Amino acid sequence: MEETFKKLEPQKKVGLIVVLTGNGKGKTTSALGMALRAVGHGLKVCIIHFMKGDMYSGEIDGIKRLAPDIELYLTGKGFCGIYGNPYPYEEHRANAQEAIRLAKNKMLSGIYDILILDEINNAVKLKLVDLSQVLDLINKKPPLLHLILTGRDAHPEVIEKADTVSEIKEVKHAYRKKIEPQKGIDY
Amino acid sequence: MEETFKKLEPQKKVGLIVVLTGNGKGKTTSALGMALRAVGHGLKVCIIHFMKGDMYSGEIDGIKRLAPDIELYLTGKGFCGIYGNPYPYEEHRANAQEAIRLAKNKMLSGIYDILILDEINNAVKLKLVDLSQVLDLINKKPPLLHLILTGRDAHPEVIEKADTVSEIKEVKHAYRKKIEPQKGIDY
Repeated sequence: MEETFKKLEPQKKVGLIVVLTGNGKGKTTSALGMALRAVGHGLKVCIIHFMKGDMYSGEIDGIKRLAPDIELYLTGKGFCGIYGNPYPYEEHRANAQEAIRLAKNKMLSGIYDILILDEINNAVKLKLVDLSQVLDLINKKPPLLHLILTGRDAHPEVIEKADTVSEIKEVKHAYRKKIEPQKGIDY
Repeated sequence: MEETFKKLEPQKKVGLIVVLTGNGKGKTTSALGMALRAVGHGLKVCIIHFMKGDMYSGEIDGIKRLAPDIELYLTGKGFCGIYGNPYPYEEHRANAQEAIRLAKNKMLSGIYDILILDEINNAVKLKLVDLSQVLDLINKKPPLLHLILTGRDAHPEVIEKADTVSEIKEVKHAYRKKIEPQKGIDY
């Protein structure tokens, strides 16, 4: 069957800045989907989770099946400030600062085609990283690297710099009907 | 590091209906991301692409790396009615009708935990499948199966039946700056 596929080949390769924001479900999963698609093209992907890191999520083992083409770094300790999260602001900030250093190193390493900074928009909103640090990353992005920034409340200056921006709006969510998070769908 | 993850275990497993709609980038990729996440939990996924099938997209080879836990069926012949697509309506309709039969068989097979019907919302909008056929699928969904329906212009009656619905709005898209589709990001 594959013989019959038309294969697009962009005449000009461009490293895009993609922002996935909004309050609905689908930001992290969309970034993961791009990573899955990318490995099919033989590309290398690095994912840094800024906020997650304390809870198991299916992508941890899913991505292992795609090693070494996707690397995943979990730097967070869960969502700062939400009910039940035991860590103080300073610890979240220190983690996020470590994540931004890691992001810069990975971005400039020349190893990857795509760098996904998951929940970095929330990290800015919660003052775990500074807007200036994110803008500095964007400004130093190698021209052919795709940089994907996810998380609600993306800063307008980040949106301004981006090439493709989607706002994912919640129309409905199962948790409002008191349905618990479900494996494979919600985590 | 993994030893320290908290593992959520829902007390009540529920098979969700998830709709990803809207005009922005991130519907198919979000469904692919859920598929990647699901295989990490040891779940089985079936993906049926209603509209795509003539153009190569990275997920075709990405998903092979996750076989046999994800199966992908490409039943379409590209987007019906868009400029450059050479196939008549009747051929698109016949393909989509084949796809809906396949979807029903897969849904009722008991093999899968997640069934993704990619671009099925467009197929309804373009009258390649009937709304009644999609509602019939939804009504016959096994209780524990997650059913994910993607594509712009989701019908209000489909949204009404769903548990989780995200509307993905285009804020910006690179193609508006005449940037060509890029591998791993756009296809």
